[in-house]
Order: sequence, then structure tokens, then C-alpha cells
Amino acid sequence: MQVVVPFAAETPKTRLSTVLAPSERHAVARAMLADVLDAIAEADPELDPLILSTAPIELDEYDEFTDRVPRPVVAVDDRPLTEAVNDHLVSTAEPVAIVMADLALATPEAITDVVETPGDVVIAPGRGGGTNALAVRHPEFRVDYHGASYRDHRARAREVGATIETVDSFRLGTDIDEPADLAEVLLHGRGRTAATLREWGFELETSDGRVGVDRSAADSASDF
Amino acid sequence: MQVVVPFAAETPKTRLSTVLAPSERHAVARAMLADVLDAIAEADPELDPLILSTAPIELDEYDEFTDRVPRPVVAVDDRPLTEAVNDHLVSTAEPVAIVMADLALATPEAITDVVETPGDVVIAPGRGGGTNALAVRHPEFRVDYHGASYRDHRARAREVGATIETVDSFRLGTDIDEPADLAEVLLHGRGRTAATLREWGFELETSDGRVGVDRSAADSASDF
Repeated sequence: MQVVVPFAAETPKTRLSTVLAPSERHAVARAMLADVLDAIAEADPELDPLILSTAPIELDEYDEFTDRVPRPVVAVDDRPLTEAVNDHLVSTAEPVAIVMADLALATPEAITDVVETPGDVVIAPGRGGGTNALAVRHPEFRVDYHGASYRDHRARAREVGATIETVDSFRLGTDIDEPADLAEVLLHGRGRTAATLREWGFELETSDGRVGVDRSAADSASDF
Repeated sequence: MQVVVPFAAETPKTRLSTVLAPSERHAVARAMLADVLDAIAEADPELDPLILSTAPIELDEYDEFTDRVPRPVVAVDDRPLTEAVNDHLVSTAEPVAIVMADLALATPEAITDVVETPGDVVIAPGRGGGTNALAVRHPEFRVDYHGASYRDHRARAREVGATIETVDSFRLGTDIDEPADLAEVLLHGRGRTAATLREWGFELETSDGRVGVDRSAADSASDF
């Protein structure tokens, strides 16, 4: 199955700007993309990843990807997410999965659940009503990522007569958007994003009874 | 397996006080407890639920519980959560599961995963490093719910030589603490909590691009 991973290459992760410099937001977005691609490759080498990027990106810095077969293909489409994904859905008669690029906790097992659960439309919801991963096997289904997309996608599936299944995954439900989400990466991440944050001096902070992140001053970026 | 459900009977859900009156917080806490007990009963009628409550509670208002076999037993222990649960763990040589009472999205399938996944210690993490559901099959394991309990429970399990498994569930990962969490209940809840919130006039609110809850003024509580 083709697995589309939409990627905002240019101004990624603006809601992390209180804790990460622009260059760091780029790096962490790339690390998350790499973690997602790793999970897809380990779920099933037959899965066919396509990075749908808003701008050209180089994958060479990720050595593993260079040797991996199939190597992820990058397609550039600078339109908004919903439009770009729907254009891709129209262009193919094959089943397609769509997995968000910021699922730094994604595991091969969770990706396998999405692509192997039978159903015309299979949804792994995200917090706040999002649709973090999706498998589409119905020719008339279209996405709309604005607002409570989980609810809208279920409604759309019913409208076109598609069967709906959900995948219950904390790891796929946790997209990394805000500083508090970085705590989830430190707690549960096993990949490059967690390693990157630790290199930068991020650690769990629990002193006030709630869990957040703290960063050693010496490791803060100079271009913050 | 015995399934302990700790319940704060007296001042429940204080972080919902910006949107719910005290009597409503009591009612919603009871509805969530009922949803959790329903999920446990539907997961496996052989599971043996024990409500570990900080104060005496009556279950008669929940008709289904009155007839259900085994009927949930209520044990009163007004000590802090960690102490009360550890005292219970010490008192039994049998495997025990501990499931939080505010998991309004819990499904029988997710509960089944917790009690059937092999391992000395099986953890379903919650957001922010919590331990929302737990199965314990090791005599020396003890809980500590303060702070990032997920991390501490893993460390404790390693210390006593217990094997550790995790259950990856969005539904068990979503404990209902804050107003934003009510949106998750409206989106994904199938039980009494969702029905109660809808009766009270709560609905999803998505106008600013993020998902929250709104409440029709006519349905607000007078004792707010």
C-alpha cells in the first residue's frame, strides 16, 4: 500500500517557537519525519512511502533512507494539506494510507494496525478531533483536515457508503505540536526525535506535580 | 482477575470547576466511573471489580449494577491514592489490575488488552506520563502515582526484576481532567458520560480552528 506522509517543509511547528529556535524546529520536524518513515519501513518493507512536501527536501542526510528500498519518494505540492491529499486520492485507484509527519511516537505495530485493519476508511484519531493516520480504500472518500476532522471524516465516509473502522493508539494519537508534547517524546519516544531533544538538553520536569520539559541553559540554541 | 478502580468520592474533578458546578462534577465523576465499570464488565464477566473509594458511595442509582453479577464491591479507604492501592497490593497474592475511574472513553477491547497482555507489569500510559491502567502480577511491585508515574513504574518494575509490557491505547490514555478533555468525550464517548454532557447542553465547538466545548446557556446549572 502507498503511504502518503504530508510534510510542511518551510515553516514547520510554529507552536514550538517558545522553546525551539527556527533552525531547531526544522531539525525536529525532520527528525519526526524520519521516525515516521522508520516506523512505516519496519511495519512492512512492502509499504510504499511518498513524502508529499510543500517544498523540495533532501533525504541524503538520513543515511538509512539512501540505502532503503523502496527509498521514500518526495513529491512537491505547495497547496494546503487537504487539497494536496485529495488531489493524490483522485489520482489513484489503489488503497492509500495517509500518516501525519509529526507522529514521533509511531511504532511499526501501530502503523501495521492502520494498514491491516479491514475497512473502506480506517482512522487513527488524534487528540482534539484530529485524523492522525488514515487508510482509504473507497474511491469517493475525500479528506478535510480542517477543524474536528475525525468527526467530518466519519460523516464523509457515511455519505459515500464506506465502512469505517478506528485504530485505538495512544502513539498515533499523539501528534507533536506544543511544548507539552515534547514531554511525551521524552517519555515514550524511541527514535531520532527523542535522541535529538536529549542532545539539546531537554529533560522531563516534574517538580510542580505536572509533567513538562526543561532545558539546560548551556544547550540552548544561539539563534533562538 | 480483580480490577481495582480507585475513586475520589468527595471533591472530584476540581479542574473542571470552570465549566461544571460542584453537583455536576460529582455527577460526571459517577458517570465516568459507571462507564469504566461497564467496559470492565463487557470485557470479561469473570473480571472482579472493586471500587476503592475515599468515602462510602451508593451504587443503587445505577440499575444495571444492581443486577450485575458480580456486583462491584465498594471498599472505603480515605488515604491518598498511592497508599491505598499499595495496601491493597500487599493484601493479595493474586494478580490485580488498577484502572483509573475517569477513563470515560474506555472500551471493553482496551480493558481486555490490559488484563490479557502477558507480563509481570502491564502499563497503559496516560498523557503527561500518567499510568491510567495497570496489571500487576509480581509480588514486589508497588505503585507511586505522583509525578511521571509511567517512568517511575517502569523503574520500579526493573528494580524488582519484573517484566514490563505496555498497552498502546488512545482510549485508555485519555483521562478526563480538564475542560478540553470534555471534547474528547463528545468526540469518542459511547457511554453515560457523553450522554450526560449532551443532556447538559455541551457540544463541540470548532469555530476558531481548534476543538473545544461550548454549552447552551439555558442548560447551565443554577448552582454554578
